[in-house]
Amino acid sequence: MRTREAILHAAAEVMDEFGFAGASITKIAERAGTTTGAMYFHFKSKEGLAQAVMNAQPETIVPRLESAGLQRLVDITLVWAWRLQVDPLLRAGVRLAVEQGAFGLQDDTSFREWVGIMEGCLNEAREQGELLASVRPSEVAEFVVGACTGSQLHSQLTSGRGDLPERMVRMWRLLLPGVAVPAVVDRISLDVERGRLR
Amino acid sequence: MRTREAILHAAAEVMDEFGFAGASITKIAERAGTTTGAMYFHFKSKEGLAQAVMNAQPETIVPRLESAGLQRLVDITLVWAWRLQVDPLLRAGVRLAVEQGAFGLQDDTSFREWVGIMEGCLNEAREQGELLASVRPSEVAEFVVGACTGSQLHSQLTSGRGDLPERMVRMWRLLLPGVAVPAVVDRISLDVERGRLR
Repeated sequence: MRTREAILHAAAEVMDEFGFAGASITKIAERAGTTTGAMYFHFKSKEGLAQAVMNAQPETIVPRLESAGLQRLVDITLVWAWRLQVDPLLRAGVRLAVEQGAFGLQDDTSFREWVGIMEGCLNEAREQGELLASVRPSEVAEFVVGACTGSQLHSQLTSGRGDLPERMVRMWRLLLPGVAVPAVVDRISLDVERGRLR
Repeated sequence: MRTREAILHAAAEVMDEFGFAGASITKIAERAGTTTGAMYFHFKSKEGLAQAVMNAQPETIVPRLESAGLQRLVDITLVWAWRLQVDPLLRAGVRLAVEQGAFGLQDDTSFREWVGIMEGCLNEAREQGELLASVRPSEVAEFVVGACTGSQLHSQLTSGRGDLPERMVRMWRLLLPGVAVPAVVDRISLDVERGRLR
């Protein structure tokens, strides 16, 4: 693993566990097996490191998918919900994105990236005739990103995120009738296990 | 205004502006025109004060509503979105609920209260025949609370919450077909201005 990557993963582990305020640069350098000097060479500040962790989220999900269109969008949310149980980079990324106001950041990059990725799935869904005529891909993508963010926080508070995959299935049961043509609503698989093994 | 209420409102103003970490007890006491002693008499700690602010959210919304059933649920979200533009108690409550992990709290009371209020509207909607047979009021309530929380955060990062009322309207356009019988979908008013004047 290259040094930059090692630092990024160490920072994610420490920030997932202790939050931004509790994650000292020394603790992160120790965990990465490097010096604080190397850290400042790769990331200008602790804030810069937190931003890099937040913005690494999509990389941990998107390469794992094979489906297309609306099924791909569903699968992104399921894989995300399962990976959030175990992947420190994703866990820290989501935690920091939600809590960033507490340490003075206001960075919507990760939200915009997720919206872009989901809009891509929805544009593909439109081309394949999966969407209702009234649906705008950008609006659905914006809403799903917000709904996933909030469901994640709620799930974290009530079950340590354990019920998040089930919450995603329930979200799609409610949303699909307003998004997809009836034949596609019936065809989309909402098996919660889809996301687990990928 | 009684002292306790004055302290609560002062704390909300200061925490809305500076966040939990930046809100000193001295600053709050000064704003409330009271002593730090009186603050510790009414609230055991700064954490206790933050929890009281978080949990005051529904009080600022619910008395303002006259509608019933599903329309009432829609109206709650619209009034909430508009009041979040101007009401320090609500603004601070939402901010603290989202950022609480950063200062070591894990309190889902405000989430549970919102879920309970929304479930009440949905139970009424069920009695009035507004809901699809497949819909479970508790699941819809849980989802809407999460979706509002996340949409709020996303809106705050991209537009300082200015576009939140419009986001609520778009949420309901997507959600209603999966929740309500068709005649009710057509009847529910999603006029964004509904929430503004109440």
